[in-house]
Amino acid sequence: MILSALLTSVGINFGLCFLLFTLYSILRKQPGNITVYAPRLVVEGKSQERRHFNLERLLPTAGWLRKAWEPSEEELLSTVGLDAVVFMRIFIFSLRVFAFAGIIGILILLPINYCGNQLSDDSDFTDKSLDSFSISNVNDGSNRLWIHYFAAYVFTGIVCYLLYYEYAYISSKRIDYFYSSKPEPHQFTILVSDIPVPLESTCSETVERFFMEYHSSTYLSHSVVRRSRKLERLIDDAEKLYKRLTQLKKRNETPQRFRCDGLLGLFRRNVDVQARCEKELEDLEDNVRTEQSALARKEDPAAFVSFKSRFGAAIPLHIQEGVNPTEWVTEQAPEPHDVYWPLFSASFMKRWISKQMVVVACAALTILFFVPVAITQGLTNLDQLEIWFPFLKSVLRLAVVSQVITGYLPSLILQLFLSFVPPIMVMLSSMQGHISLSQIHKSACTKMLWFTIWNIFFANALSGSVLYNVNIFLEPKKIPRILAEAVPSQASFFIAYVVTSGWTNMSSELFQLNRLMSNCISRTFTGGADDEFEAPSIPYHSEIPRIAFFCLLGVTYFFLAPLILPFILVYFCLGYIIFRNQLLNVYVRKYETGGKFWPIVQDSTIFSLVLMHIIAIGIFGLKKRPLIAILTVPLPVLTLLFSEHCRKRFLPIFKAYPAECLIKRDRADQNDPTMSEFFDNLVTAYNDPALLPINYSGNSDRRSSPLLHGAEV
Amino acid sequence: MILSALLTSVGINFGLCFLLFTLYSILRKQPGNITVYAPRLVVEGKSQERRHFNLERLLPTAGWLRKAWEPSEEELLSTVGLDAVVFMRIFIFSLRVFAFAGIIGILILLPINYCGNQLSDDSDFTDKSLDSFSISNVNDGSNRLWIHYFAAYVFTGIVCYLLYYEYAYISSKRIDYFYSSKPEPHQFTILVSDIPVPLESTCSETVERFFMEYHSSTYLSHSVVRRSRKLERLIDDAEKLYKRLTQLKKRNETPQRFRCDGLLGLFRRNVDVQARCEKELEDLEDNVRTEQSALARKEDPAAFVSFKSRFGAAIPLHIQEGVNPTEWVTEQAPEPHDVYWPLFSASFMKRWISKQMVVVACAALTILFFVPVAITQGLTNLDQLEIWFPFLKSVLRLAVVSQVITGYLPSLILQLFLSFVPPIMVMLSSMQGHISLSQIHKSACTKMLWFTIWNIFFANALSGSVLYNVNIFLEPKKIPRILAEAVPSQASFFIAYVVTSGWTNMSSELFQLNRLMSNCISRTFTGGADDEFEAPSIPYHSEIPRIAFFCLLGVTYFFLAPLILPFILVYFCLGYIIFRNQLLNVYVRKYETGGKFWPIVQDSTIFSLVLMHIIAIGIFGLKKRPLIAILTVPLPVLTLLFSEHCRKRFLPIFKAYPAECLIKRDRADQNDPTMSEFFDNLVTAYNDPALLPINYSGNSDRRSSPLLHGAEV
Repeated sequence: MILSALLTSVGINFGLCFLLFTLYSILRKQPGNITVYAPRLVVEGKSQERRHFNLERLLPTAGWLRKAWEPSEEELLSTVGLDAVVFMRIFIFSLRVFAFAGIIGILILLPINYCGNQLSDDSDFTDKSLDSFSISNVNDGSNRLWIHYFAAYVFTGIVCYLLYYEYAYISSKRIDYFYSSKPEPHQFTILVSDIPVPLESTCSETVERFFMEYHSSTYLSHSVVRRSRKLERLIDDAEKLYKRLTQLKKRNETPQRFRCDGLLGLFRRNVDVQARCEKELEDLEDNVRTEQSALARKEDPAAFVSFKSRFGAAIPLHIQEGVNPTEWVTEQAPEPHDVYWPLFSASFMKRWISKQMVVVACAALTILFFVPVAITQGLTNLDQLEIWFPFLKSVLRLAVVSQVITGYLPSLILQLFLSFVPPIMVMLSSMQGHISLSQIHKSACTKMLWFTIWNIFFANALSGSVLYNVNIFLEPKKIPRILAEAVPSQASFFIAYVVTSGWTNMSSELFQLNRLMSNCISRTFTGGADDEFEAPSIPYHSEIPRIAFFCLLGVTYFFLAPLILPFILVYFCLGYIIFRNQLLNVYVRKYETGGKFWPIVQDSTIFSLVLMHIIAIGIFGLKKRPLIAILTVPLPVLTLLFSEHCRKRFLPIFKAYPAECLIKRDRADQNDPTMSEFFDNLVTAYNDPALLPINYSGNSDRRSSPLLHGAEV
Repeated sequence: MILSALLTSVGINFGLCFLLFTLYSILRKQPGNITVYAPRLVVEGKSQERRHFNLERLLPTAGWLRKAWEPSEEELLSTVGLDAVVFMRIFIFSLRVFAFAGIIGILILLPINYCGNQLSDDSDFTDKSLDSFSISNVNDGSNRLWIHYFAAYVFTGIVCYLLYYEYAYISSKRIDYFYSSKPEPHQFTILVSDIPVPLESTCSETVERFFMEYHSSTYLSHSVVRRSRKLERLIDDAEKLYKRLTQLKKRNETPQRFRCDGLLGLFRRNVDVQARCEKELEDLEDNVRTEQSALARKEDPAAFVSFKSRFGAAIPLHIQEGVNPTEWVTEQAPEPHDVYWPLFSASFMKRWISKQMVVVACAALTILFFVPVAITQGLTNLDQLEIWFPFLKSVLRLAVVSQVITGYLPSLILQLFLSFVPPIMVMLSSMQGHISLSQIHKSACTKMLWFTIWNIFFANALSGSVLYNVNIFLEPKKIPRILAEAVPSQASFFIAYVVTSGWTNMSSELFQLNRLMSNCISRTFTGGADDEFEAPSIPYHSEIPRIAFFCLLGVTYFFLAPLILPFILVYFCLGYIIFRNQLLNVYVRKYETGGKFWPIVQDSTIFSLVLMHIIAIGIFGLKKRPLIAILTVPLPVLTLLFSEHCRKRFLPIFKAYPAECLIKRDRADQNDPTMSEFFDNLVTAYNDPALLPINYSGNSDRRSSPLLHGAEV
């Protein structure tokens, strides 16, 4: 790719971003769009709907920027929770890293690269290949490579310092958050699975007997888990039917304003349908009730066990209970509304096997995904495209077409394919036997991260120069060399990727096109605002890997092609302000893990650094400076030791709370008069919502689904 | 090596074993040797010395065999402890495995190998190369390889079944042993290190305050650890001086019977020396007392903290105590006499760094050790030896010399070098910051195992055919092929190794040549039995790796060269009876880990199986049956899954005792009237022995060194 193509791409994307920002600032002020651009405020009842029309509503303004910028971190914490704050810390951390990298990269490395003449590109400045700005242009054996060497050391040092600082900061935030939290059921509860139920006894009795025997002073209560998959389905059906019935009723009651089919016959038919639906719903409800009473006797060998104190719950959580370690397996209970009931597989062995199978499935997905990536990659090599599709030759020769295709299309297509992956990863994670939505998302987040790194970074980097081949990872000795040959030559693709995919993603995150369109459609066809809508929650499992991937690109290309750094800085600036806005206005909190997503970011940054070092070793070797290559070897070793130290120093805090905190918190509660009421509620907090009594046909209060707790009006 | 050379070697070693057995059965009956062959009985006061002479004393008898055979496992357990029983289980397990392997190998695989004619060796039966009995002789592409394939599957299945059975058996023994044990200090105690001592406070106060605050109901007492290295040295000096003094006194008191230098002048000089020594000892004792009082104020930030119940001690052991996971680090306390005081490094960071450095040191040792191995290996290739030392040519051409050299010398030299390694590994492990001798031995055991496998198996296997090169492990794809080429060709070396090194080791273990000679010398020079002797303890860290290595040889060569199996079976039979004898008569118990050495054996067996599978894949590939090679790939995967399952199912039991056991055991003690006395002793159980008052010059009761507790009279 040449410089002018890059500039075209930057221009297009900058224009697009500006357009979307302008549109957003107008659309968000329209009362009809309040459920699209401020669902969180609607849910919390904080939105002031302005029904009267004024001219200001049609003018683009930047007030939302100020509003998103203003809140301090403490305000953010109290409004949107610790997970969201940690999510924002990723941006702050990245901004710091790349501000520093940008200074070194643009002011020092870029001029050095440009002064080299290894590639002997004599064209005009705007026609210069982007490779002229990359390390490929530095002459073989040049002493200037020492500067790259020192830059790598200094950069690694700074990133490690920032990582340590951030880890320490988030750990302390996590502990503070725990101290300041209200008593919550999941703090007092553990999930016990693989309970060895004797033949003559029930699970409930076994649990009661065991904990009364061994933890009599702290044991409070338990609720046995029941295999409710069939019941869940029935309730789902009933819920859908109920929804349809409500719509039918509404349609029959109100005159048909917008539709032309308000004939008498049709109206009568609607009334018939309504009657039939009501009958069906009643039948379904009977079914549900029968199933519920049957289920009360069908117990899974797993139970949520609650204790009188947090420390009391921590003891059986950490100490192996039974002689057989695969029985009485304990784990922290998730928040009650975070429990993922549908796929509650209880057996240790079953969970273990499904975990192995999910690993295999993930590998298969990664390999199959190679097909679209390979095709996408073909688009950056126009010559190859001409060979495949000869009839396109004349079109492809047009400058605009060629620039759009090389600069824009590839990443767009890749993006389309990628959007299917997160739901698949969530599905796979849920099959692994995680018991809560937050765990599923955390597990999916890791999967997505490796998937992204492998399928975007490695697949693109390697297929460009050598045959994309898993085999190279079976010959570790050759890895630095192969990467050093392949990665720098893909610099232009990844610069384009940041500009197109990165920037566009951010502005479309703000614009919420999908939700806007569905809102338009529903308003048009149901006539007026739908009074029942679902506020979205932020999909950490797809956002964090994406951000971490841009971080990886920045770190890896920092000294290969520093030209990428300004674009990455713009990406993180956009991300910072846009996600602050979204967190404050759009997303509601589905669960609170207390910052457990951070270690994933830490690991991915360490991986990026080591990858950068490996490529550096390869590059210095290729550039005929073996001494520098050898002197770079300690760098990855030191980085991994640093990572290991961080794991020992901080990771335990993210796994469970220490005794000191638990006991202090318990003491603070001792004099709290509301605790007895809390314990009364705790006893029933973990009852399966599928077993709650339902009454749709009576149409009194609707039961709320556990997954959508807090997310529905 | 040809068959007749093997038979010569077998003959020599069989004769040697028989000779040693005969000598042993005579020597053990001589009263003077009782401290060599039954020190354990002497220590326990069970030996009946027969001072009167009778003829039976000079005749070889096999009574000791019967006595070693007779005790049941329960008797063994009560006499020698669980670790020794687990050690014997290694032999039982190996005997079962190789009895089965022998049946398949000798009856099925050996004839098939011999019937092939790939090597077209037309010599006489006795001149046949041992390779004719190995898989190398099976024709390329032969269908008979399917039999090898099925044999590998069946053998793996049987080994895994036996491993599972053994793991389950030893786990249950471990739990039973815990239930039946007396209350012991280490069950009630944990070691807390990295205590954050505030400036204005002492460590002792900090510990007291912390545990009174957070574990007030169970906390009993604590003893702070002190950095006593200098003191240890002083006490060691004093001890040595005291010993010398005792000897001097004895010499001066008794008339010099055996020595010709009993002149008056010399006698007077001895008296002078004695007086000087007494003066020195007094000075040294003063020094020690000054140092002791100074030390009482110098505290390390570590302490042994005792609790009122086992479960009470388990709680802080398992739950992270402080907010910072690198502070208040807890671990199980070892038995008081098992504590390794000299290198008690207390800081988390320091221990972490030394651990990393020990890893590097181990790697360095492994690489340096290559030199003697390469020389040894040269001896099996006589031609090479002739090139190196041309003047030996005529000697080497003699049939006997050549057979002795190829069959016997190489493993003897290797053995000599290997004997230096265990002490080095113990030293390295102690530098890692382990706090007890048992942990040091366990860690050294693992190191020795990998060292042995690498330096005997891989170095010998690979240097024989390809240049010994660490590089092949950087190209994992080629490993099966290289191993498949190299390993079968070294079959004869390893068969000779089993016969010479294995058998000789076992019989010299019985004969205890070193101790016998030192006993002879000391009896000759000090005149009569030394009344102060030290009973040895079994060096698990050098014995277990050796046995596990023979197990690895058997498993790996099971289907490559089944001829090795009978010799291995003989080795394990010898080992079974000899070690039973030694455990009952010779070795005293220094510590009791409750069978924690077993997981090492489990891991090494799994490694052996996987290594066998990898070689099998390579062999089937080389023999032009790629289908069989591919069908073998699931075997290592399944084996690793099995291993992973075993880890989950059994390993936690070997790490710590479950809550159920602890609480049951605590309840059983509640009504025990002796417990109050036990708790009184517990308070002082973990005081550093270096701080106990000493009084050598007064010559009243001698203080016993912590390391030799129970091992001295």
